[in-house]
Amino acid sequence: MKPSNELSAEAALKSLETLDLAYPQKDLFCTWEKTGDELRALLTTAEILQSLYLAGRDLRCFHSGLAVSLFRDNSTRTRFSFGSAANMLGLAVQDLDEGKSQIAHGETVRETATMISFCTEVLGIRDDMYLGEGEAYMREVAAALDESHAEGVLGQRPAIVNLQSDVDHPTQSLADLLWLKQTFGSLDNLKGKKIAMTWAYSPSYGKPLSVPQGIIGLMSRFGMHVHLAHPEGYDLIPEVVELSARQARETGGTFTHSHSMEDAFADADVVYPKSWAPYEVMQKRTPLLRAGDRAGLQDLEQVALKRNAEYVDWECTEARMKQTRDGQALYMHCLPADISGVSCKQGEVAASVFERYRLRTYHEAGGKPFVIAAMMLLQRFPDPAALLEKLIGRSSRYADIG
Amino acid sequence: MKPSNELSAEAALKSLETLDLAYPQKDLFCTWEKTGDELRALLTTAEILQSLYLAGRDLRCFHSGLAVSLFRDNSTRTRFSFGSAANMLGLAVQDLDEGKSQIAHGETVRETATMISFCTEVLGIRDDMYLGEGEAYMREVAAALDESHAEGVLGQRPAIVNLQSDVDHPTQSLADLLWLKQTFGSLDNLKGKKIAMTWAYSPSYGKPLSVPQGIIGLMSRFGMHVHLAHPEGYDLIPEVVELSARQARETGGTFTHSHSMEDAFADADVVYPKSWAPYEVMQKRTPLLRAGDRAGLQDLEQVALKRNAEYVDWECTEARMKQTRDGQALYMHCLPADISGVSCKQGEVAASVFERYRLRTYHEAGGKPFVIAAMMLLQRFPDPAALLEKLIGRSSRYADIG
Amino acid sequence: MKPSNELSAEAALKSLETLDLAYPQKDLFCTWEKTGDELRALLTTAEILQSLYLAGRDLRCFHSGLAVSLFRDNSTRTRFSFGSAANMLGLAVQDLDEGKSQIAHGETVRETATMISFCTEVLGIRDDMYLGEGEAYMREVAAALDESHAEGVLGQRPAIVNLQSDVDHPTQSLADLLWLKQTFGSLDNLKGKKIAMTWAYSPSYGKPLSVPQGIIGLMSRFGMHVHLAHPEGYDLIPEVVELSARQARETGGTFTHSHSMEDAFADADVVYPKSWAPYEVMQKRTPLLRAGDRAGLQDLEQVALKRNAEYVDWECTEARMKQTRDGQALYMHCLPADISGVSCKQGEVAASVFERYRLRTYHEAGGKPFVIAAMMLLQRFPDPAALLEKLIGRSSRYADIG
Repeated sequence: MKPSNELSAEAALKSLETLDLAYPQKDLFCTWEKTGDELRALLTTAEILQSLYLAGRDLRCFHSGLAVSLFRDNSTRTRFSFGSAANMLGLAVQDLDEGKSQIAHGETVRETATMISFCTEVLGIRDDMYLGEGEAYMREVAAALDESHAEGVLGQRPAIVNLQSDVDHPTQSLADLLWLKQTFGSLDNLKGKKIAMTWAYSPSYGKPLSVPQGIIGLMSRFGMHVHLAHPEGYDLIPEVVELSARQARETGGTFTHSHSMEDAFADADVVYPKSWAPYEVMQKRTPLLRAGDRAGLQDLEQVALKRNAEYVDWECTEARMKQTRDGQALYMHCLPADISGVSCKQGEVAASVFERYRLRTYHEAGGKPFVIAAMMLLQRFPDPAALLEKLIGRSSRYADIG
Repeated sequence: MKPSNELSAEAALKSLETLDLAYPQKDLFCTWEKTGDELRALLTTAEILQSLYLAGRDLRCFHSGLAVSLFRDNSTRTRFSFGSAANMLGLAVQDLDEGKSQIAHGETVRETATMISFCTEVLGIRDDMYLGEGEAYMREVAAALDESHAEGVLGQRPAIVNLQSDVDHPTQSLADLLWLKQTFGSLDNLKGKKIAMTWAYSPSYGKPLSVPQGIIGLMSRFGMHVHLAHPEGYDLIPEVVELSARQARETGGTFTHSHSMEDAFADADVVYPKSWAPYEVMQKRTPLLRAGDRAGLQDLEQVALKRNAEYVDWECTEARMKQTRDGQALYMHCLPADISGVSCKQGEVAASVFERYRLRTYHEAGGKPFVIAAMMLLQRFPDPAALLEKLIGRSSRYADIG
Repeated sequence: MKPSNELSAEAALKSLETLDLAYPQKDLFCTWEKTGDELRALLTTAEILQSLYLAGRDLRCFHSGLAVSLFRDNSTRTRFSFGSAANMLGLAVQDLDEGKSQIAHGETVRETATMISFCTEVLGIRDDMYLGEGEAYMREVAAALDESHAEGVLGQRPAIVNLQSDVDHPTQSLADLLWLKQTFGSLDNLKGKKIAMTWAYSPSYGKPLSVPQGIIGLMSRFGMHVHLAHPEGYDLIPEVVELSARQARETGGTFTHSHSMEDAFADADVVYPKSWAPYEVMQKRTPLLRAGDRAGLQDLEQVALKRNAEYVDWECTEARMKQTRDGQALYMHCLPADISGVSCKQGEVAASVFERYRLRTYHEAGGKPFVIAAMMLLQRFPDPAALLEKLIGRSSRYADIG
């Protein structure tokens, strides 16, 4: 029992009740499709769940039900965050492993979506490998679930949780936003702060664009000065860059797009240096994949690695950190970072910089289970505030032993 | 809360109480080993669980316990149906993946069966790839569990759920029967109806025989006119065909066995066109597998594919559907269907036919979790009627929020 | 309801309360790091849980929470024992599959340890393949969890359960000790009994040393006469042999180390014949593995198999069993045994010997879920005795049906 947590949860709950939203919420594919109030509701719900969890409370809202996870790319952190969120709320995780299942044998998406959903409350999908594919797949699944629910095939419409698409990575960007809020004290305090979302060198090839896209697409909504920097050829999806610029202007911030890591870091309050694949390489990958052209994919990889090697100096060094606001910018990363001399010879960040911020990146990651749980809760319950009030009154999640 | 569901559940419960059965029920390997009353109890229990689930009820009967799944063939639908049933009743699924486990290293069946069962309530097994192997394996597991329970090694005797053997696929055929009951109004209404269980062309090779065997072995018990049709060489296990014919005669129906898809479809009320492997190919496969003869297996596959190609006209077309009762026969499939021009160039069913019945095939599949849950419940509880009465009185499976 | 079980559970609980221990208990990496009272508390807790489980009680102590399993070697028995223990106490298992996860891509241990632990209560690790690696890895994970908990990143410090390291296999040796206690009536009755831990021939190569090390390291603490026997070159870690000898002396027993299976079996009350890899082969393996030297590993395997073949007569035969105390020694094995003429041509034990003791080896294995559950409980709860008293008063784990 931690009274301070209880109090903050109750205060947060009151702020949640001031938002006039329709529940249950619809699927969140990209944060920029959501209103500011919807995002605030998500953050607040995540905070309440986190404070109650840390106070040891029992947060189960489902007595039974499946949370299905479909990972079309490797994952440790997101897989465990999803599993943690599901478990916390009372759901059991069942993985849909395409290697094991008949999906590999040509089954249509809509049929599979229904077949795995008869007793499913939440469907988490990661599909981030190919531009133009991931979000499209999720929307196809969503349409299938809508139809099957409308036609009475499914008793409930499972919520889709986007665990990373080719376009956005909302559970990451919202966990990052939660961490910024916790670090700077409030969302209002983010106004006027400068965040540098910059490319950084990594010896690996082909990391998705959705993390940087998610960051600029979300952080541009709170009056921040967003600076996107990367070498030539490492562009992001143009539409996402454009909407981020527009959002920054509309909320009293600015949006700068450069090819200079130095400019981005200058006086930044927050830096987020991270590798991603060259845009045109990502564009070429999708048709090669569809054509099953393995040789072509390998050739493309060689081209990309060669280009990558030209930008080995895009590293978050101590010297660069010194150029940030008072030399004290908050370093962020979605993890795992490629740490020079630790996880690779030359990487995204100097070992001493990473080590100084290491525990803070862990804290940053620690919000993700609660962001995902908040999505589940807001998408599946008609009156989340009433539910959270009940949860605030709950006892320990450990057997009460007097 | 849906009063209509409650009422139907209560009525169903009363009909269940009129059956004089011994509980807990024994393992169900083949439906034809079960009495009519036993099958009726299963269907009724499945219906009660389905109506309560759709009404949002909490159906947990186990506070803890494992439901172990052992899949020796790929599966999406059955895997999720098993997982859904287990979760609904309060069990946690644990997969026994033979690739991961030491079973691959020569461990004996009876030992493994015991080792995975110390806290196991249900053991679901799919083993359908090789004639003469699957059901034999399940019976070996059952004998081992019986011994270990009798000797006090296991505190409880886990129920075995046959998730598809080489002989029968009872969770599929019973879900199909449930769907027929729901479509035609009652089991009695099935009397005199004609069902065509026919082979259909698929570009794939080697689908198990257990679906058609399960269908003729079950649907022949309700006074239906069962017509089994396939090209020469695509016979089913002779004993299953014989017992199906006998059962049809004994219940006032008929059994016809032909090589004509046309004859089967003529005036049929229900059609079930589906690919399966040639019988003699399946017979040759088992010794090749035992001998580890990969080349032999590949040669056999070529022979089978070549033969298959001769029967590409065995397709469920619009023209053939027109020949059924009023051109309106119910199309059934265990999914996924090989749909011409959709999932393959030429397949089991024309795209327009499948699309017209698509949502109905989803409904057909939707009963499977409840059929499996009914098996679990009837095999693990000494007084299922009393238990179901408790479940009817249960509240929501969602956290009650006022 | 089995009153006898209740009574024995209550008596056991009283004996538990006489032990003056600090709770929650620290991670158990090797049994020899634990005091006698700590081991007695573990055994007693396991016995209470087992008797309550067999009486059908609901033993959940966690309303939610993850039990993460990380297997770096194949496992069926231990995997299921861990899953059973977790489920019994109310935890959900989530596997960390290194093949699937980003760990394979150079992620540091401490980071991963934290990332998988935000909502984790227990972390089970099996890492037994390489001398000098497994326990070191577990201690590294433990240090990371300590740091993340101390720094507020983790709300709770997950308990680590050693599911087999290169040094010890405590869940196995404690389950074996539980079985000895149940067989001989009490721990006190073990005083003066002779246990033969002997090498035995197996056609397979490279079994870990941690089972025999675990047995001599634990059984030497109860006044037993421990006889370790193996062919030349099949030594165990010298430090473990030394501490076992010292422990035997200190508790009034003896420790003998020979190269004679005959001497070991002579008048033994308990025999534990089991294959393990030659010590120097295990020593050479680790650097080859680190260097990624596949050819070197294969060469080493050939050498080991050739040496192995020289000792094919190290088999637990009927003739050897006759030399044990009254020809009636208790045969033990961690399973699966390599049974001559059954699971291999020539193996660790004659078929007739194994068959006579088969069900007893199952009983031996049956304690493992409860030993693991006891570890979880003692490491996660501040007042286990009070908790167990609550559990003794609990009702059925099946839905109460009047």
